[in-house]
Amino acid sequence: MLHAVIMAGGKGTRFWPLSREKTPKQLLSIVGDRTMIQATFDRITPITPPERILVVTGVSHADQIREQLPLLPPENVIVEPVGRNTAPCVALASMIVKRRDPEGIMGVYPADHVIARPDELGESVEKIVETLADYPEKLVTMGIKPSYPETGYGYIKRGAPVADAIYEAEKFLEKPGVDTASEYVRAGSYYWNSGMFFWYAATILDMMQEHMPELLEAMKPISESVDTSGFVDTINRIYPELPGESIDYGVMEKAGAQGRVMVAVTDPGWNDVGSWRSLYDLAEPDENGNMPRGDFISVDSRGVVTHNQKSLIAVIGVEDLIIIETGDAILVCHKDRAQDVRKVTEIIKRRGLDNLL
Amino acid sequence: MLHAVIMAGGKGTRFWPLSREKTPKQLLSIVGDRTMIQATFDRITPITPPERILVVTGVSHADQIREQLPLLPPENVIVEPVGRNTAPCVALASMIVKRRDPEGIMGVYPADHVIARPDELGESVEKIVETLADYPEKLVTMGIKPSYPETGYGYIKRGAPVADAIYEAEKFLEKPGVDTASEYVRAGSYYWNSGMFFWYAATILDMMQEHMPELLEAMKPISESVDTSGFVDTINRIYPELPGESIDYGVMEKAGAQGRVMVAVTDPGWNDVGSWRSLYDLAEPDENGNMPRGDFISVDSRGVVTHNQKSLIAVIGVEDLIIIETGDAILVCHKDRAQDVRKVTEIIKRRGLDNLL
Repeated sequence: MLHAVIMAGGKGTRFWPLSREKTPKQLLSIVGDRTMIQATFDRITPITPPERILVVTGVSHADQIREQLPLLPPENVIVEPVGRNTAPCVALASMIVKRRDPEGIMGVYPADHVIARPDELGESVEKIVETLADYPEKLVTMGIKPSYPETGYGYIKRGAPVADAIYEAEKFLEKPGVDTASEYVRAGSYYWNSGMFFWYAATILDMMQEHMPELLEAMKPISESVDTSGFVDTINRIYPELPGESIDYGVMEKAGAQGRVMVAVTDPGWNDVGSWRSLYDLAEPDENGNMPRGDFISVDSRGVVTHNQKSLIAVIGVEDLIIIETGDAILVCHKDRAQDVRKVTEIIKRRGLDNLL
Repeated sequence: MLHAVIMAGGKGTRFWPLSREKTPKQLLSIVGDRTMIQATFDRITPITPPERILVVTGVSHADQIREQLPLLPPENVIVEPVGRNTAPCVALASMIVKRRDPEGIMGVYPADHVIARPDELGESVEKIVETLADYPEKLVTMGIKPSYPETGYGYIKRGAPVADAIYEAEKFLEKPGVDTASEYVRAGSYYWNSGMFFWYAATILDMMQEHMPELLEAMKPISESVDTSGFVDTINRIYPELPGESIDYGVMEKAGAQGRVMVAVTDPGWNDVGSWRSLYDLAEPDENGNMPRGDFISVDSRGVVTHNQKSLIAVIGVEDLIIIETGDAILVCHKDRAQDVRKVTEIIKRRGLDNLL
């Protein structure tokens, strides 16, 4: 059966001042009316029923997630006492799935991405599940057809075809420079690495056993306590001692080198919403070329993105600004500088303005 | 004796969103800690005691003014039921002064200007009072030595010298273009028209009788009711019927053509604070070239002026912006577009967002 794991451990500050330590990006409605984790849940439920969806998150966000996802069984929110990157998260979820369904297939989905055409995602997942039945020893990563030479994403080069829109993964490539990214897009055989994965729970645990044996060894008591009364206590005892590691580095790249990874390629209108800059791709400009979200007045201004909660924003004679307002803080940022929002949060931390973090 | 009249009838929207219909510029602390009318009062009291200071204002601001100026006798706040520009205001104040002190000299001061060196203003006023004793039939306007070719002010050309730093006023000149303004500054004989006036109450009333006889005729019942129990009722009855006219156009220019106006020249660090742009002249840049007033974080930004009340403002990679925040509205304006703030308030009016006006 197909299970889903939503990884909701992010605590990014890239959406400050909207995102805060208590409400990271996945709990916010940055695009559309639903929060990002709600939108993620919405597009998974047509292919995976809520009983087979797990959400892995941090201790300070579990209650909010249960509130935001009333259809999700509350016990399916799995709480990590501390964040340890994606490898322990994937191992934890795989142990649960395998215990409950030894033949289970898992889809792993980040909680904070946008997918404009969820039907295309669903179609791709169906093909993946079919193909995995023939290749149960493989790991599948979802590759997104690049629409422009983005330098902020990793890429995957496809190899030989395996099935309809599924290929051997020939190579994982780091975030490229703009020239290299342009070559990738021209070549047509490179895809954005979306961070969505599909595999048999048993297979990923085997691969982790091979490439990260210490991690699996340390997590063994967790695996043995799944669905027992001691489960939560065991997680809380074991987790703080685990090393932090990503599933990409810990398993995928190594498995790729072994010829054990396939890439399923699709174009579902995916965006990782990596910074406020994403709003320029995701929002529709109004007749003046602005993308306001909230009360807004423009005089001779263009390319202004806003996200305002409590105040009207008026602009006069400005261009290409991101303006975010949250009642206690205002960000005014040139659109090409959105990656520097963290510099602001660092200054806030240094000044001890903890209520703004 | 020297009396003072503070004209506080302004309801400008040029300082939106800080200025509102209920709290126009003169009631705000745009520069420094004191409100503009408090600062005006502060610089007048060394030369005129509070008992001889009148404040003329609109009905919706009288209470706030009495609160802001606790040393001013409350009955010295004279309330116009409707605004009728400066000529009726000056006539009203002159009638009061003349009734109480037939030999009285009046200084007329706008409530919403900045004067950096009030001592120099005081010295100039002393000279004016001395000189008026010798020329009681003259009107005196205060001319400010221009420090740069401002195109937003009217100018006065000085004529023959009369006394120390006091000249015949040869000509009143409209707001010039930038080339003409530069010539004025180079010539050294042109001064900014500050809107501050000095004269015997009896003289200005004579001049108004000569140049605006209908106005004086219409206001006669007011003059006759000064310091009687019917005074306020009489103002409220007469005022709505009065024509609106400025003292500059109604009297000063015509009196100037008759050789009846003198210009007292001084350089007290005067600024009419005509728009948010003024903050660039009036505030001291910090080490990054920004002029924040309120909690502020700058990353790679320059020339940013802020005035924020409730929210921290963070800027990244922006230049030459005016950012104003008031809890319910935010203005982000290029520094060269501050004169267009009224376009925003017009849109607000059209949209019926009256709580923001």
